[in-house]
Amino acid sequence: MTINIALLGFGTVGSGLPELLLENQQKLEMILEKKIVISKVLLRNQEAIEQARANGFDYPFVLSMNEILQDDSISIVVELMGRLEPARTYISQALSAGKNVVTANKDLLAIHGTELRALAKENHVALYYEAAVAGGIPILRTLANSYASDKITRLLGVVNGTSNFMMSKMVEEAWSYDEALQVAQELGYAESDPTNDVDGIDAGYKLAILSEFAFGMSLSASEVQHSGIREIDKSDVEIAQQLGYVIKLVGEIVEVESGIFAEVSPTFIPKTHPLSSVSGVMNAVFIESLGIGESMFYGPGAGQKPTITSVLADIIRVVKRMNDGTIGKSFNEYSRKTKLAKPENVKNKYYFSIETPDSTGQFLRLVKIFTSEDASFEQVLQQKGDGKRAIVAIICHSLNQVQLKNIREKLNREVDFSLLNSFKVIY
Amino acid sequence: MTINIALLGFGTVGSGLPELLLENQQKLEMILEKKIVISKVLLRNQEAIEQARANGFDYPFVLSMNEILQDDSISIVVELMGRLEPARTYISQALSAGKNVVTANKDLLAIHGTELRALAKENHVALYYEAAVAGGIPILRTLANSYASDKITRLLGVVNGTSNFMMSKMVEEAWSYDEALQVAQELGYAESDPTNDVDGIDAGYKLAILSEFAFGMSLSASEVQHSGIREIDKSDVEIAQQLGYVIKLVGEIVEVESGIFAEVSPTFIPKTHPLSSVSGVMNAVFIESLGIGESMFYGPGAGQKPTITSVLADIIRVVKRMNDGTIGKSFNEYSRKTKLAKPENVKNKYYFSIETPDSTGQFLRLVKIFTSEDASFEQVLQQKGDGKRAIVAIICHSLNQVQLKNIREKLNREVDFSLLNSFKVIY
Repeated sequence: MTINIALLGFGTVGSGLPELLLENQQKLEMILEKKIVISKVLLRNQEAIEQARANGFDYPFVLSMNEILQDDSISIVVELMGRLEPARTYISQALSAGKNVVTANKDLLAIHGTELRALAKENHVALYYEAAVAGGIPILRTLANSYASDKITRLLGVVNGTSNFMMSKMVEEAWSYDEALQVAQELGYAESDPTNDVDGIDAGYKLAILSEFAFGMSLSASEVQHSGIREIDKSDVEIAQQLGYVIKLVGEIVEVESGIFAEVSPTFIPKTHPLSSVSGVMNAVFIESLGIGESMFYGPGAGQKPTITSVLADIIRVVKRMNDGTIGKSFNEYSRKTKLAKPENVKNKYYFSIETPDSTGQFLRLVKIFTSEDASFEQVLQQKGDGKRAIVAIICHSLNQVQLKNIREKLNREVDFSLLNSFKVIY
Repeated sequence: MTINIALLGFGTVGSGLPELLLENQQKLEMILEKKIVISKVLLRNQEAIEQARANGFDYPFVLSMNEILQDDSISIVVELMGRLEPARTYISQALSAGKNVVTANKDLLAIHGTELRALAKENHVALYYEAAVAGGIPILRTLANSYASDKITRLLGVVNGTSNFMMSKMVEEAWSYDEALQVAQELGYAESDPTNDVDGIDAGYKLAILSEFAFGMSLSASEVQHSGIREIDKSDVEIAQQLGYVIKLVGEIVEVESGIFAEVSPTFIPKTHPLSSVSGVMNAVFIESLGIGESMFYGPGAGQKPTITSVLADIIRVVKRMNDGTIGKSFNEYSRKTKLAKPENVKNKYYFSIETPDSTGQFLRLVKIFTSEDASFEQVLQQKGDGKRAIVAIICHSLNQVQLKNIREKLNREVDFSLLNSFKVIY
């Protein structure tokens, strides 16, 4: 017996599937009692077909989605084109035609996930997308299955490999942001316009998907706050080191009584925290829950082989469900009405780096501003000034989002103070 | 609709189930569309029943397994008594009576797993045991599901919390083995006879279970080599520090062309390796595979809440399978004939600590012994001697098991050399 699958796109990720199927042939036939066959591959033009053939691949290549939609022997469509269109249209068509879909398309799921999941449900077919978040880490299926018995209270994720590579170089080798970006671009980790990676947009998409599985609540892209790593200065990195922290771009979702709060931001992580050792392009998701307590899942965030391995795990799951006659079950069955947390309920420690005039009485002014918002200091570090300006680094005890906003505004209102940076501190 | 479950035993772990069911009530009813009800609890005598009632628990307590076996309303039996008997008999009876079984009993599964799995299969019922390995880490289900698309080549596990707690204190706070053991016993982490934990027996049981899921091969307890942490000296810990390593008790399963090799042993781990930061009673399983590359799963290895959370995840899985009508599928579907690796195919770097006379020519004798086995040195550290005896620490380039055995024998044969320790080195 064979299972015929169609691939949409045959780029870096897709072209890794033949080798992976071969490597795991024995195991797959044992588990599935069926052979997975790539029966059609959709490419965008004749040139792409010639190119694939020149690379030694010989599949039935097609140029029209209809050839796949109308082929009743194809039960699984694997979308690996990326971007929103035509992926969204093709996936919708495949679901409507009663075909199961596996995709690694994070942007699409984060933005149009609700609509596509509804369509899958309506047509009693599967829509799986494990590879969309943290490529090689099987985090979505683990959340759906193994955390069904647990209540997750906080999720922290280092889920953007590009920015983590850059931050690792900035922390471990004292590179500047610009140096790190240049090397990331040379290595192909960062695009010429790095906005999505360095501003936390990509990590925000991943948080939106993680939120459904971990908290049962969907978030639109605009409901995930994000700030990026562009403004991080060498002095921030040095101060973090001195105080026992490393800085990383961290995505956080936390649930408080009033709801959930999701944010991607540069974050101070204590050197003793398991996330602090997640270096380079590696990803990790750290979970705090009432049952298990603290757990972490670590692995590659991207790359051809890890991504296609996650895609194949999804394909296997679809075939198992087909064998069992249970196709059409949602990837994630945990769903609640989204409730966003009230800003006054969301609390964290914060780091502030403030430039002040280097003269008597300035520190007192600073203390008064924080005190006016009921904030107290946990750690203070004043760098030796140059006689004109001094830099004061402060780590505050727990502040809620309202206090944080007020302190930032008050500091910005003072003409001769300059709030250089303020970052979340995990403890 | 309700699902009636019976508990065998109601000690620390079992008595955590009511609270956990309550905490996750809403989510469970959403996912399962059924309510899980503890319908009978088997205790060993009337005193235990009085005790449970005194602790505020009011369940139908019973003293005979027959009352559970003959109750057709009970579909899942949850064994939390531990040890081999009567657990083995009761589980066998439950499986034979057509009841699904969930257990956290590592020793039982490692020793009698093959027999129990066959019985479950024969009776078309489920036998799940996620909590048997690394309590709170959902490693078995993840291996069975998400690594179905991958070929695992090596698994490294810090899977014994007691010995890891002791090693963490020995490494981070320079405690001696005896000091660490005493505190572990005071904290209730180590039993009065700590043999199973400190000699690697417990970790070996876990490796045997992990081997089935990761490599599809079952191993008897005697096929897992084990050595423990009793002989680790402060000087070993110091030398490791100086050379950039930490020492931990690590379980390893590796597959080479000729088969698999499994061993629990004190191991040098580079400080840059993700396993090096697994401290205290925490556990972690690190996986090397052709598809994903490197990944790690980290969490609590034991404790009431993490363990019962894993048990409940298994119960949920059984209920889902009952709902789907797919009960009777094996927990793990990957199974190959066990082939053990030839000793000459298993290679690792090794650390040797050797006491020699503190006189000219001794180092040359040492070099000659290693050279006679084609071994070369990667790092050498000779401590300043006292004029009589000197300690030489050597890290060798890759040695196979035959070379290792020969070198150990040759060193032991030299009357005035003393091989203090030799440990595996991971890189």
